[in-house]
Amino acid sequence: MESMSYTTRSSSSSRKLLFRQLFEKESSTYTYLLADASHPDKPALLVDPVDRTVDRDLSIVNDLGLKLIYAINTHVHADHVTGSGLIKTKVPGVKSIISKASNASADILVEAGDKIQFGDLYLEVRATPGHTVGCVSYVTGDEPDQPQPRMAFTGDALLIRGCGRTDFQGGSSKQLYESVHSQARLYTLIFTLPKDTFIYPAHDYKGFTVSTVGEEMLYNPRLTQDEETFKSIMENLKLPYPKMIDAAVPANMVCGLQDLESKAA
Amino acid sequence: MESMSYTTRSSSSSRKLLFRQLFEKESSTYTYLLADASHPDKPALLVDPVDRTVDRDLSIVNDLGLKLIYAINTHVHADHVTGSGLIKTKVPGVKSIISKASNASADILVEAGDKIQFGDLYLEVRATPGHTVGCVSYVTGDEPDQPQPRMAFTGDALLIRGCGRTDFQGGSSKQLYESVHSQARLYTLIFTLPKDTFIYPAHDYKGFTVSTVGEEMLYNPRLTQDEETFKSIMENLKLPYPKMIDAAVPANMVCGLQDLESKAA
Repeated sequence: MESMSYTTRSSSSSRKLLFRQLFEKESSTYTYLLADASHPDKPALLVDPVDRTVDRDLSIVNDLGLKLIYAINTHVHADHVTGSGLIKTKVPGVKSIISKASNASADILVEAGDKIQFGDLYLEVRATPGHTVGCVSYVTGDEPDQPQPRMAFTGDALLIRGCGRTDFQGGSSKQLYESVHSQARLYTLIFTLPKDTFIYPAHDYKGFTVSTVGEEMLYNPRLTQDEETFKSIMENLKLPYPKMIDAAVPANMVCGLQDLESKAA
Repeated sequence: MESMSYTTRSSSSSRKLLFRQLFEKESSTYTYLLADASHPDKPALLVDPVDRTVDRDLSIVNDLGLKLIYAINTHVHADHVTGSGLIKTKVPGVKSIISKASNASADILVEAGDKIQFGDLYLEVRATPGHTVGCVSYVTGDEPDQPQPRMAFTGDALLIRGCGRTDFQGGSSKQLYESVHSQARLYTLIFTLPKDTFIYPAHDYKGFTVSTVGEEMLYNPRLTQDEETFKSIMENLKLPYPKMIDAAVPANMVCGLQDLESKAA
């Protein structure tokens, strides 16, 4: 069993990934801060920032002397308003990023195979649709000068011992299964990443902070099933209507800036 | 500014620290799982387990193939019931650990300078009283075969940009200040650890997961003050009476097993 460890985090590179995981309690959302700490500018990005924790996120960026360049979303969230737009109003020059397939607006629209560079480090974009039609995962590079083990920011596609629902926003249990399992399409699959790849999801509701590809391949109660069983599970979840979807989705289609007044203080 | 990074986590050792941070939402408590993943037995310990998340913690221990040997507390908590006793009933052979100065009962009572060995890794005990009279911090070793950067599990002595209250359980703002700042006593001080030492507290209420000694030396709004200002701040917090203290402290004096019926399901 591959598992999170300190000593395997060494790299032949002199590059330093600065990494922080941040939690928003109301929506149980994880926001991730990554920066190239070896680069003179310390360029940084935030993955899945939440509107109500923007000030916290910018305070740590400031304390650590980082230059925030990107605010990135894995998908159009239905349970919280993204902080991307608010960050752009507070830190001039930051560019918002989301997938082209999401049909949302942002400064940069990415597709599978694109690279998001920050200093000498980068994230590659993998299409992982199924929770929504435009879901992508962001994965650190596999060259020896990139962080080892690799890290996958999977949004709601793959959660720790779970996955996102597939009944709204162009969701499809068949697509989600393929996004996680398929070995056929480059830049799509999650389970073909090295087993020691860290899984950093957009949410966790039980207090787990990280998993690995190897762990989820063994213990994910939904995605270890065959495809038909998985589809049956997803079709019978009987989840309530997402309570924030009608407010959050329209706002998140425009980086969270549709209705500034509706934001929580 | 030293900061959390992947590439500085390399070690000259072949030892592998497996590390997981776990969160209990109601009391905003962090529980930490550490194991020597290179040792054939994969011996593991939990720092500050919570009664209501014991099943979660044991499930990840089991999934990762670890052998849990210790359930450790940084102090007698007033805001939640420790999971130590419950873990002992579920996993025979696990030993509970707390400081001798806490006057609580446990299988092993530790003092400043003691080492808690798990496989070829260990935690050293530092006396950090002030939040309670018996608070200790657990710090990874400084030899080259131990995890680098070092990691300090500070309980409620040092929180991220904060610290624990000092008005109950033998608390003392003077003692807490010395626990963090004093350079006079070996195995007491926190701020004399290397600046890149990771600070892993027992709680965070804003969604931060980790800090470093260097960061807190610069940005902790209380502990960057001089001692008199710090004492004045702590004496004027006007915090409400801790709502769980009357139930939690007596239970935690006996590893959380005083009244099994009172445990949350």
